[in-house]
Amino acid sequence: MKFSKMFIPTTKETPNDATLPSHQFLLRAGFIAQTGAGIYDFMPMGKIVLDKIRAVVKDEMDKAGANEVQFGFVTPLSLWEESGRANTMGNELLRFKDRKNTNFVLSPTNEEAVVNMVKNRITSYKDLPIHLYQINTKFRDEARPRFGLMRGREFLMKDGYSFHSSAEDLVREFNLMEETYKKVYTRLGLNFRVVAADSGAIGGSGSKEFHVIADSGEDTIVVCDSCDYGANIEAATRKAVTKEKLETIKIEKIETPNCKTIDEVSSFLNADSYYSMKAVIKKAVYEDKTQIVVFFVRGCDELEETKACNSVAALELADANEDDLKDAGLVAGYCGIIDLPKNVKVVVDNELQGENNLVCGANEENYHLKGVDLTVLELNYADLVAVQEGDICACCGGKLSYTKGIEAGHIFQLGTKYSQAMNANFLDENGKAKPFVMGCYGIGVSRLVAAVIEQNHDEKGCLWTKETAPFMVDIIVSNSKKEEEASAGEKIYEDLKAAGVQVLLDDRINARFGFKMGDFELIGFPYAVVIGKKLVDGFVEVVDRKTLEKTDVKIEDVVSTIIELIK
Amino acid sequence: MKFSKMFIPTTKETPNDATLPSHQFLLRAGFIAQTGAGIYDFMPMGKIVLDKIRAVVKDEMDKAGANEVQFGFVTPLSLWEESGRANTMGNELLRFKDRKNTNFVLSPTNEEAVVNMVKNRITSYKDLPIHLYQINTKFRDEARPRFGLMRGREFLMKDGYSFHSSAEDLVREFNLMEETYKKVYTRLGLNFRVVAADSGAIGGSGSKEFHVIADSGEDTIVVCDSCDYGANIEAATRKAVTKEKLETIKIEKIETPNCKTIDEVSSFLNADSYYSMKAVIKKAVYEDKTQIVVFFVRGCDELEETKACNSVAALELADANEDDLKDAGLVAGYCGIIDLPKNVKVVVDNELQGENNLVCGANEENYHLKGVDLTVLELNYADLVAVQEGDICACCGGKLSYTKGIEAGHIFQLGTKYSQAMNANFLDENGKAKPFVMGCYGIGVSRLVAAVIEQNHDEKGCLWTKETAPFMVDIIVSNSKKEEEASAGEKIYEDLKAAGVQVLLDDRINARFGFKMGDFELIGFPYAVVIGKKLVDGFVEVVDRKTLEKTDVKIEDVVSTIIELIK
Repeated sequence: MKFSKMFIPTTKETPNDATLPSHQFLLRAGFIAQTGAGIYDFMPMGKIVLDKIRAVVKDEMDKAGANEVQFGFVTPLSLWEESGRANTMGNELLRFKDRKNTNFVLSPTNEEAVVNMVKNRITSYKDLPIHLYQINTKFRDEARPRFGLMRGREFLMKDGYSFHSSAEDLVREFNLMEETYKKVYTRLGLNFRVVAADSGAIGGSGSKEFHVIADSGEDTIVVCDSCDYGANIEAATRKAVTKEKLETIKIEKIETPNCKTIDEVSSFLNADSYYSMKAVIKKAVYEDKTQIVVFFVRGCDELEETKACNSVAALELADANEDDLKDAGLVAGYCGIIDLPKNVKVVVDNELQGENNLVCGANEENYHLKGVDLTVLELNYADLVAVQEGDICACCGGKLSYTKGIEAGHIFQLGTKYSQAMNANFLDENGKAKPFVMGCYGIGVSRLVAAVIEQNHDEKGCLWTKETAPFMVDIIVSNSKKEEEASAGEKIYEDLKAAGVQVLLDDRINARFGFKMGDFELIGFPYAVVIGKKLVDGFVEVVDRKTLEKTDVKIEDVVSTIIELIK
Repeated sequence: MKFSKMFIPTTKETPNDATLPSHQFLLRAGFIAQTGAGIYDFMPMGKIVLDKIRAVVKDEMDKAGANEVQFGFVTPLSLWEESGRANTMGNELLRFKDRKNTNFVLSPTNEEAVVNMVKNRITSYKDLPIHLYQINTKFRDEARPRFGLMRGREFLMKDGYSFHSSAEDLVREFNLMEETYKKVYTRLGLNFRVVAADSGAIGGSGSKEFHVIADSGEDTIVVCDSCDYGANIEAATRKAVTKEKLETIKIEKIETPNCKTIDEVSSFLNADSYYSMKAVIKKAVYEDKTQIVVFFVRGCDELEETKACNSVAALELADANEDDLKDAGLVAGYCGIIDLPKNVKVVVDNELQGENNLVCGANEENYHLKGVDLTVLELNYADLVAVQEGDICACCGGKLSYTKGIEAGHIFQLGTKYSQAMNANFLDENGKAKPFVMGCYGIGVSRLVAAVIEQNHDEKGCLWTKETAPFMVDIIVSNSKKEEEASAGEKIYEDLKAAGVQVLLDDRINARFGFKMGDFELIGFPYAVVIGKKLVDGFVEVVDRKTLEKTDVKIEDVVSTIIELIK
């Protein structure tokens, strides 16, 4: 392709709201253009990159035996009512009416659509398993679309759904998909990590996320320094923190004036906060009601909100305000486990189980209790703590630390959640109707365009990996008005094309060398071949975009040099 | 691919509303599935066909030098307000609000989006021409979605838009696109016709349609039996019908009791209807008003409504009812050209120009005029007649006839309609700002899936053409429980794959031969290789789907035979 025939509108301007490198560079280098909040057009170079990533995803999915399909982007709301998600998806599910006043949604994901496709079309265990996927536009009406392609509202996603006659077969496919996804990210040249994850609104049991490691990642990932363990902070676990067990003492109410925080109480009592209970009061939001919940963790720990939310099966947790506390009969700063109002729900962190001498609030202004014995109480325990850096890995005893990741894939063992709700059954070996056992598997294809750049850029621009680069080589004719330079460029261009190399010829007559070089650096093709002053001596320059190192190469060796480099 | 690993849910059931062969067969053969009115999912075989057509379109567009892009499917309504189409598109433009109450539309076409992309990014004539296209989902909220993929609401379309610095350069690109489109339809194996067309709601001057010839086509096309001329009935022209000129006579009012139709008047007066004027009264609908218009054509001609609508630049023509006529002061059945009420608009067909002795209504119940001389009147003339079968071709004098076509492509010379409205300019050679001169070019990609079948089917099912077939060959193992048949099938399958043939192996263990054969015929792969009883003698059967002819072929010759057939 020739630069002069392509629409590659590079610019020096960066919009104010573009804070991430990928957002800035993709806009500036003419890959994408914004048309609305969280809605982007792909310009020619962006479309090439998007299609390259799409092709890798398709290739690996096909190799894994999945069948590509295409669901309508517009889906009847009635399907979402069948599954129950019409009520649980909230405002991210964009709803609208057609001219006949029928309700539709813009698909944010397609569990309902795929169950609808398979239902009554697969009726026997003999036709299982089957895996259907699509690579298609999605829409999520995010409250705060931002970061360009990273958190857009309209985006391209690969979503796959598998159907099985047993949970064991689902696990087999789930593992196959983990391997398939690893191949995808490896081929794309990405540094990534597979981590245990929370299942979120999709539901089901058991899920893994695939994170592209990047400082700008929105997700905090917990990784072990000595084994493979990795988990999203929302799902991370650790070896329980243990200290010497205290003797059981008699419970006692003590005055603790103005000691509302754990630090204040610990310092006032001169006690280790490990032996105290911290209360975190939240309002759990359900489809039809809200409920005040007090979560207790050790004084030295922090509550992980997603774990907390899951422990009470709520749609989300909202902050409880003063009025909520008053209505529930709770005393801010002095909330404790003993004699809580009956209408309040309580969940205690697993690591507190068995403790017999704790400090906690007395549910009375300016008073705490000491000597609280949990072993005599009937309590509801769950994993609630946020893993901290320096915590110990439960798998190997290594040290856990944080890193930042961009979620670029997520696989779920759904089970029968959707098939049961939508009454989608097959007949098993004994002729008995059973709901399909399902898995679902997503890759954020357009997000990957940005993720590649978040992980691979410098201060000048993009550094595309070999599988994602719009072109492998940019031939820069220093001065296209010089006949000999222009024709040397043409010849190298034709030779590289003939050798199967994806090559762009910067033949722009009115652009100066510095401008062409700037575009090369901004756009970030892996290599450039510069045809300039040394041409008279039979040399051109090969530039490596990553290192910006320049090497003089004899003109007759250019093609073989490039082929060697891109191998 | 193996049948047992693919989701190909064939069925004998046809929904009641599926009247077209393509609609019936695509549903029955498991290519598509309906999810809502005019909304279809593509199942694996349908997706393969859709992608094959898409790939041919992309290949030819790329070869023609166009750049592929991707616009957001969701577009801000504000862009449509800029162009003015927010008011003129009517209910087909599906509008909705996001969670922040901002107005959006589901793109039915993307003139606004492309102007928005190019505006301020191309600023000089030096960067022109450029042609941007996408192959992407569209939505049109049709009043009566029907005929399956033929007239869906969500559909896949290739839409391209070119930008030029002059009208001459637009014509060059327009002609290049005509050639490009011809290549597309030819490669797809379709019998098609390029015809002159009306520009409709898209606007601009000069447009051509590409019709796939099929009995079930919704459009009537006028074609010449001896030259290349073809036109949509809405835009078709003919050599004017001429008869002997009559002498001018004095105008005279005559009583014509109960003669409301042309036939009644002609027979009452014993006169040739050629020498009479037929009045057709319509209500022209504009953005902000309606207007009664009387269209006059010869008594022996019929009014072509689209031509009539264009002649008064209306959004549409509605029927005028009795009240409308009364309000306008018109007399049904006796409406004539002389002394019409002032508030009524009049358009007269071109072929009546120069007539000097006509019969027409007297604008008075039971009276007509004769001897009406148009040469002394100041009238507004336009081409209004519907071309009839048997009319004479204006190009060559040949005979015109009707045929039925499915509109599968449409190219337009838009001119500056959108660039002017949206203030999108470039600087010409003299540094003067001018609006871009634009063309636009559409191909109905998902509609083509149906069009192929409308043109190519028999009573048993589909007859895919070579470029559109999901697989070229279906290897049918008569009895997959027989070890020798199954392994012969596997071998031929592997050999054909190795030879680069797109092949499906029907290895289903529980399906009987008749069922497999039925699926082959219904789905419509071009060829089948049947492995059955003759295997013991070293023979298999090659079946041609089109003719259903069976040929015994030595097993060692199967690959070469198939390669020869699909060449």
